[in-house]
Amino acid sequence: MTVFPKKVRIVEVGPRDGLQNQPRIVRTAAKADFIRLLAASGLEDIEVASFVRPDRVPQLADAEEILAALDGDLPARLSALVPNMKGLERAIGTGIPRIAVLTAASETFNRKNIDMGVRESLDQMGPLVARALREGMSVRGYVSTGWVCPFEGTIDPDAVVRIVGELFELGVDEVSVGDTIGAATPWQVEVTLERLLERFPPENLAMHFHDTYGMAVANAYQALRMGFRTFDSSAGGLGGCPYAPGAMGNVATEDLLYLFDRLGIETGVRLAGIRRASEHIASVLGRKLPSRVLATPSN
Amino acid sequence: MTVFPKKVRIVEVGPRDGLQNQPRIVRTAAKADFIRLLAASGLEDIEVASFVRPDRVPQLADAEEILAALDGDLPARLSALVPNMKGLERAIGTGIPRIAVLTAASETFNRKNIDMGVRESLDQMGPLVARALREGMSVRGYVSTGWVCPFEGTIDPDAVVRIVGELFELGVDEVSVGDTIGAATPWQVEVTLERLLERFPPENLAMHFHDTYGMAVANAYQALRMGFRTFDSSAGGLGGCPYAPGAMGNVATEDLLYLFDRLGIETGVRLAGIRRASEHIASVLGRKLPSRVLATPSN
Repeated sequence: MTVFPKKVRIVEVGPRDGLQNQPRIVRTAAKADFIRLLAASGLEDIEVASFVRPDRVPQLADAEEILAALDGDLPARLSALVPNMKGLERAIGTGIPRIAVLTAASETFNRKNIDMGVRESLDQMGPLVARALREGMSVRGYVSTGWVCPFEGTIDPDAVVRIVGELFELGVDEVSVGDTIGAATPWQVEVTLERLLERFPPENLAMHFHDTYGMAVANAYQALRMGFRTFDSSAGGLGGCPYAPGAMGNVATEDLLYLFDRLGIETGVRLAGIRRASEHIASVLGRKLPSRVLATPSN
Repeated sequence: MTVFPKKVRIVEVGPRDGLQNQPRIVRTAAKADFIRLLAASGLEDIEVASFVRPDRVPQLADAEEILAALDGDLPARLSALVPNMKGLERAIGTGIPRIAVLTAASETFNRKNIDMGVRESLDQMGPLVARALREGMSVRGYVSTGWVCPFEGTIDPDAVVRIVGELFELGVDEVSVGDTIGAATPWQVEVTLERLLERFPPENLAMHFHDTYGMAVANAYQALRMGFRTFDSSAGGLGGCPYAPGAMGNVATEDLLYLFDRLGIETGVRLAGIRRASEHIASVLGRKLPSRVLATPSN
C-alpha cells in the first residue's frame, strides 16, 4: 500500500526558466502581472528573475526592475538565479530573500551553459553562497543534466550524488536535480533517486523535469512514489521555444497540479489561478502553451 | 529489481479512434496513405476503420473504400470497429481479418455513446462475436471509461473486472481497457489493474490511454511495470479535436515509443516511420498534432 505525502510543494520557475528562451522579450510590467497572478494562485515559491549579464540573456535583463515593480508585497517567497559574485551584489541590492546557484552533472554541458567546468563552478560558488548566507538570504542549488546530457549522454548517478553533496556542504538548503533536456525515463529517474536517497533526505531535494519527450509527469510520479515532495514546474509548460528545434518546456504546473489534486495531495495552489497566469503570459507571448490541462475547458 | 518485458506490442488506433472526432473529413486516398505509412513503420496491428452508420460518423463513412484501397497487401494485421450485426455483414464483405466490439464500464456513458445499456450491449454482442468467429475472424473487445466516466465519475474496479470477464466469455482474444477521457492517474490505474491481474493474464489485456490531462505516459509506465505488454496509441497523439472543448487525443505512438526505446524494450516499430505517418496526416488535417516527441527534431 503506497502512502503518498499529505502535502507537496510546487516551485514555480516559469518567470525565469520558462521565459529565458522565449524569442519574444516580455515587458517588465507584463512579467510582474504574470508573477502576481502566480502568487495569487497560492504558490509559495516563485523564481522570478536571473542576475545574469543582461547582454547574455536579454529576456531576463530586467531583474532589478521586476523586483522593484513587485515591491515585496506578494505572499510568495521570491527567488532569483545568481551566476556569480557580481550577480549576487545586484541581488543583494534588491532585497530578494532567496537565490539559486547553478552547476551541472555533465562537464561538457556546464562548459557550454556557463563557461566553467563543474569543479570551477563549485569552487567559485563557495564564497558566493557564504556571502549570501551572511546577508541573511537562503540559497537553493541546481544540478542541471542530472540524468541525460545532450553531449555526453547518460549521466552516472555517482556524479549527481557527489555534486549534490558538495552543494549541501556549501550551505544550500535545497538542491533541485534537473532533467534539463527532458530525456530521462521514469526508470532512469528511479535509479538515480535511489542513490540520492541513500545519502540525502527527500525533503531537501527538488525534482526539476522538462517535458521534451512527454516523460515529465511520469518522472514526477515516480519521484512522488519514492517520497519526494518538492517539484519545479512552469505555468502552462512554458519554456518551449517555438523557433528553436524541440519543445524543451518545463513540466506544466497545471499538469502536475492535476496529478496532485486527483491524488488528494495538498499543494495550496488553485488550478484556476494558474490557468489565469498561463492565459495571461500566453497572450503576451502570442503563442499556445503546451500544458495538456490548460487546453481542457475550465470548470 | 524491475524486469521489464523484452517486447511490447503497440496497437495503432489513429486511423479510427484518432480520426473519428476530427472536424475535417479525410479523403479515402489520404487515409490509405496514412495507413500504408503506419504499416511501413513496423506496426503489426492497425485499427483502420469502423463499420458504424455512415451518417452517424461521417469521418469513418468510407470503411469499405479504405479496405479496397489497401487491397490486403500490407504487412500489418488490420482491424475495424463493428457496432452491430449490420456492421459485421459489411466487415465480412471486406475480408478484414479482425474486428473490435465496444462496451463501457459506465452505464451512462454507454447509453450516450452507443444508445445501449451495458447489459444490452453485451447481450447483442454475443451472436455478433460468435458469427465473426465462425467467419474465421478474430475479435478484440473494448471497455470504455475503465477508470473515469464524465457523467458518473470514478468507476468501480469490480465493474471493469466483471465486464472484461464477460467479453472473454464471448470469445474475444483481447480486451482493451480504456481511460476514455484521459482523467485517470497512475495510482487509479494501478488499483484497477491489480484487480484485473487477479483474474486475467496481462497478455490478454490492452491498455488504452488518452492524454487529455497529460497522464497517459505515466499511466502506460505504471501498466508496463505491472507486466502489461499491449498498448493502444495514435500516431501524433491524434484524436484531439481542435474545435471541441478539451484535447482528448490518444496517447501519441511516438511518446510511447520513446519510452519503450529508451527502456530497451522491443516494439518492432521505427520512430522515423511513425513521424512520417504523423507528418502526413497532420498536413492533411491542417493542424499540429499534440505528440511531444513529434515536436522535437528528428535525427
